[in-house]
Amino acid sequence: MNNYSTPVRAGVVGFRGYSGAELVRILDRHPGAEPWLLEHRADSEERHRPRGDRSHPRIPCTPDAVRSEGVGVVFLATPPEVSMDLTPAMLEVGAKVVDLSGAFRLRTVENYARWYKETHTQPALLAEAVYGLPEFCRDAVRGARLVSNPGCYPTAANLAIRPLIEAGIVDRKAGIVCDAKSGVSGAGRKPSLKTSFCEVVENFSAYSILKHRHVAEVLLTSGLEEPEFSFTAHLLPLDRGILETVYVRLLPGRDADSVLSAYEKRYSGEPFVRLYDPGHVPDLRAIQYTNFCDIGFQVDAASGRAVIVSVIDNLVKGAAGQAVQNMNLLLGYPETEGLL
Amino acid sequence: MNNYSTPVRAGVVGFRGYSGAELVRILDRHPGAEPWLLEHRADSEERHRPRGDRSHPRIPCTPDAVRSEGVGVVFLATPPEVSMDLTPAMLEVGAKVVDLSGAFRLRTVENYARWYKETHTQPALLAEAVYGLPEFCRDAVRGARLVSNPGCYPTAANLAIRPLIEAGIVDRKAGIVCDAKSGVSGAGRKPSLKTSFCEVVENFSAYSILKHRHVAEVLLTSGLEEPEFSFTAHLLPLDRGILETVYVRLLPGRDADSVLSAYEKRYSGEPFVRLYDPGHVPDLRAIQYTNFCDIGFQVDAASGRAVIVSVIDNLVKGAAGQAVQNMNLLLGYPETEGLL
Amino acid sequence: MNNYSTPVRAGVVGFRGYSGAELVRILDRHPGAEPWLLEHRADSEERHRPRGDRSHPRIPCTPDAVRSEGVGVVFLATPPEVSMDLTPAMLEVGAKVVDLSGAFRLRTVENYARWYKETHTQPALLAEAVYGLPEFCRDAVRGARLVSNPGCYPTAANLAIRPLIEAGIVDRKAGIVCDAKSGVSGAGRKPSLKTSFCEVVENFSAYSILKHRHVAEVLLTSGLEEPEFSFTAHLLPLDRGILETVYVRLLPGRDADSVLSAYEKRYSGEPFVRLYDPGHVPDLRAIQYTNFCDIGFQVDAASGRAVIVSVIDNLVKGAAGQAVQNMNLLLGYPETEGLL
Amino acid sequence: MNNYSTPVRAGVVGFRGYSGAELVRILDRHPGAEPWLLEHRADSEERHRPRGDRSHPRIPCTPDAVRSEGVGVVFLATPPEVSMDLTPAMLEVGAKVVDLSGAFRLRTVENYARWYKETHTQPALLAEAVYGLPEFCRDAVRGARLVSNPGCYPTAANLAIRPLIEAGIVDRKAGIVCDAKSGVSGAGRKPSLKTSFCEVVENFSAYSILKHRHVAEVLLTSGLEEPEFSFTAHLLPLDRGILETVYVRLLPGRDADSVLSAYEKRYSGEPFVRLYDPGHVPDLRAIQYTNFCDIGFQVDAASGRAVIVSVIDNLVKGAAGQAVQNMNLLLGYPETEGLL
Repeated sequence: MNNYSTPVRAGVVGFRGYSGAELVRILDRHPGAEPWLLEHRADSEERHRPRGDRSHPRIPCTPDAVRSEGVGVVFLATPPEVSMDLTPAMLEVGAKVVDLSGAFRLRTVENYARWYKETHTQPALLAEAVYGLPEFCRDAVRGARLVSNPGCYPTAANLAIRPLIEAGIVDRKAGIVCDAKSGVSGAGRKPSLKTSFCEVVENFSAYSILKHRHVAEVLLTSGLEEPEFSFTAHLLPLDRGILETVYVRLLPGRDADSVLSAYEKRYSGEPFVRLYDPGHVPDLRAIQYTNFCDIGFQVDAASGRAVIVSVIDNLVKGAAGQAVQNMNLLLGYPETEGLL
Repeated sequence: MNNYSTPVRAGVVGFRGYSGAELVRILDRHPGAEPWLLEHRADSEERHRPRGDRSHPRIPCTPDAVRSEGVGVVFLATPPEVSMDLTPAMLEVGAKVVDLSGAFRLRTVENYARWYKETHTQPALLAEAVYGLPEFCRDAVRGARLVSNPGCYPTAANLAIRPLIEAGIVDRKAGIVCDAKSGVSGAGRKPSLKTSFCEVVENFSAYSILKHRHVAEVLLTSGLEEPEFSFTAHLLPLDRGILETVYVRLLPGRDADSVLSAYEKRYSGEPFVRLYDPGHVPDLRAIQYTNFCDIGFQVDAASGRAVIVSVIDNLVKGAAGQAVQNMNLLLGYPETEGLL
Repeated sequence: MNNYSTPVRAGVVGFRGYSGAELVRILDRHPGAEPWLLEHRADSEERHRPRGDRSHPRIPCTPDAVRSEGVGVVFLATPPEVSMDLTPAMLEVGAKVVDLSGAFRLRTVENYARWYKETHTQPALLAEAVYGLPEFCRDAVRGARLVSNPGCYPTAANLAIRPLIEAGIVDRKAGIVCDAKSGVSGAGRKPSLKTSFCEVVENFSAYSILKHRHVAEVLLTSGLEEPEFSFTAHLLPLDRGILETVYVRLLPGRDADSVLSAYEKRYSGEPFVRLYDPGHVPDLRAIQYTNFCDIGFQVDAASGRAVIVSVIDNLVKGAAGQAVQNMNLLLGYPETEGLL
Repeated sequence: MNNYSTPVRAGVVGFRGYSGAELVRILDRHPGAEPWLLEHRADSEERHRPRGDRSHPRIPCTPDAVRSEGVGVVFLATPPEVSMDLTPAMLEVGAKVVDLSGAFRLRTVENYARWYKETHTQPALLAEAVYGLPEFCRDAVRGARLVSNPGCYPTAANLAIRPLIEAGIVDRKAGIVCDAKSGVSGAGRKPSLKTSFCEVVENFSAYSILKHRHVAEVLLTSGLEEPEFSFTAHLLPLDRGILETVYVRLLPGRDADSVLSAYEKRYSGEPFVRLYDPGHVPDLRAIQYTNFCDIGFQVDAASGRAVIVSVIDNLVKGAAGQAVQNMNLLLGYPETEGLL
């Protein structure tokens, strides 16, 4: 652990939501940061706390307050339209911004308009934002002002797919299938019928088949074309965790060793990606409450069929943990600080 | 099964809610009734259904429609204020009413005002309404126009407690404790933070300690005084079912046989109350999706300590099933029709 | 409902297991059958029941008892080796047999040995057995002595896949992916670490990737070759229900209408298969506790990508319900008797 | 955090079980201890781990190995009979022992025989063992060789009850009710029908009514007599957490302030007990994965009825966390080390 003479004040907007609350928990254990709550909307209930429980500094979510209190980095755990609204002013007063929404992930206003069905109001910042998947964009994040934190599904998908594409061992013409399953916390804390207990428990359902917004992020990072990639999201009756089952066809002559080599080449030395022996795959228990992405696979070399299983905690590596990983890069901290 | 030349048209208001939907399911299997959906508010989402799936008749929730279509009985699976609003007009056009809300359970406007914190707008109907716990009020229900269907917690509590009070074997001065646990469907289908999946799963909580509205119903039916009775409600991370653990002190000389005799005397011949051998108690699995109330107990004769476990399905014996049981009584049908 | 002057005595072996218990429940409501419990092994705990609860006739699981009591049909809800052991003797004394294990599903001893890693001890009966997926083998079942009830995963998979293969609208060279998720009851009632509550709850895992025994059944019925078909099973943290997400590539010129036509052609008039409008898919809630298989799909016509979602209750259409459907065919009853 | 020049080697017997695994996790974060796995029985499955994952030192569970490796403290997360067997030898070679079983909790062989239905084989050690509920026995633990770690239910019960008894504000003649609910991990990792997923999910049940072994521990620590105390255990469909609802009658003139004062007097300065404002109670979420016991209450002063809600994580404050708290006392470490 390092000595930080002056821990950075890390503002969290949306601290009542699940990703925001997870950010506060992680920052509480981070020796180089102090969570400050930026009060944006007070419309959601907070838990009653024990007598004498210590509380976090809480200030208005305004550029003035951020500047006067010397908040150095602002996390936006907010909807895209709120992120577009808050980002320019926060950058203006000198804070670095890590945005957990989808506002700045898709690079062009056209792409944003297509997948989010809305007009982007900050095209210059969209062009400037750095996509924060550290395993592939570490250096760019280090020099950025504005980091766009990846979506949960794309994090697990890209970490599983991109090394295979880069290694050139997959038959892209046969198509790649990503069957994704997520716990309910991925849908946020705002009450809705779809996330009501009695609708979810003892149930399981598919949604956004072939049309999920996150598909666009997978395409941008993996290098796949849309017709090559089939993605279905499913809602699991559990709180947290994403498991994605990815089906590819290997090119002739490729086998389990080829797959393992592709992953090892890419992830040797990566602190947050863990591989399994061929034939073994992780489950959600392996990664819940951690910032790890665990990857395992099964290959039938004769037919070229390969199945990869990739798991993350949607609130950690899929949101708050990765956001802190990006903060560490932004501030020149060790990348794993507060995350192991 | 009987032959019904003309099944009654049974209107269901609130058919999108959990109790209302359960009513429709039960009525679908009832040879003497046809469920008709009375459209009151269309603000809640309905499920997409298979192609060609048969649908139920659907008419406006108005007295005119009820009269012109010859709806004979109206079930109100609605909040108390809606029930107070709709009941007079439905009775006016000749329909019998079974109200599943708390609007007509507490007999006096004073009692209602105390526990529901609102003014009762139909005092005459409040006085007229018959409390529909058939095991204790069967005859009164048969002659009624307006039946007030009991609450879920009081149904399980009163069926467990009243026979012991009637038999005079309990030391009331020592107090009676009812520790009640309910599945989430008891809270209704309207989305709220308290019933959101991520707040409920892997959690368990107590609420409305000593102050739950349902306490008033237990007092009215059991004959207990408020200072004698301690009641706590808890929210279980499951869909349906109520289990209540009741603690009493037996008077000197009383034992397990005394308890069993008290119950057998009361429930011999009752179709929907089932007893267990002393020392054995039911769990939720025993009664889910049925109209049964199952009761078991454990006694330590030396100290007089006795513990009774009473279980029901909150949507069946605690709501829709008991409502149909009351309809059967109102219409002169066999009491168990459609419920076994 | 028909009149049955003499309901058949339907013996259930394995009535303590989940499929066996479901059989007893379904047969209890069947006007043409009486469940008789055939006591094979008494090693598993039974629930304590209410006082006076009626019980089912219970006899030893022997050919003599089956003959002398006139049991007309025997359901084997047993492991494959027990089914192979019991079937010849039960047929010998004149009972028809519906076997719910995998013992008689794979047609040849070689195929059985490959997928079940054991030697088949009844090759003649293996050759004789009729595979009981009524939607495709109805006539053969009607004349059979021994029906092999399909596996749960293959039922949902074949009902989704075979009509598309028959219609010739799928690009088989691109491969077909079936990503299958099942509730825990599919693993049976015998305690094991893998099905322990604390291992399953808040968890989700893939297993038997590319190697599940049920793959062989899908290949036999769908007409696919093994290299064309990728199958992964997953364990859902819920009690009952299977959802399979099937990914295919349509041949050029094919679209959602082609898919709908293929299904409608096959399933028009089928009582237990329900289709959804294109773009809508069923969830588990749609079919739990029913004998339905619900099928919906999403198509991107431009790229030919199509995703089909197929759901069943693994204990009903995936086991006991389909077994009763087969019994109805064997006995000349209406196929839906006791199942709607 | 302190500097520990030589972290103690802390042996864990039963590291495959839930309490043992939790011990290893806690010790992993403890700066003054290193978890060493003592291999006693290898009959339970271990999880497959990522490639290159670091492992813990593993040695045979023998006195020789403990001595030669210099293991300073041994945690026994084992059944009582195994604890009785291992304890003398481990003490003999100079290790301190923290036993998580019930073997050494009940002080006398007669009491043990009554509640555990077995003969105690180590009466001298039973007399010597110190009961490790630090909030009440801190000093005795500091000087002990053998600490008996309290049961999960008694920890939550005694922390709620004893301050009220000590303060003399409760009417003991009216009796005290403790209605306790626990997650499934409290039953251990060994597969059984009672803890199988399909038996527990969507279910809730009472067990060991008035007869639970843990009652004896509550009586010893709280000072209550058995006839004064009614205890029922229930199984919640969740992994971890205990909530106990305690019902008492206050003596005349006592109110919410009296209750709060009693608790504050006792727990002021206690690091692991947190109080709530009167009228507010904790749920399981408040304490899961922590070593806290949270206590809240509701009082009706007019009738003297009081309800206290006490919650702990059964694997932390109810087992492994409290065991480490005791280790800290044994070794002269700060009591909260590794636990906040």
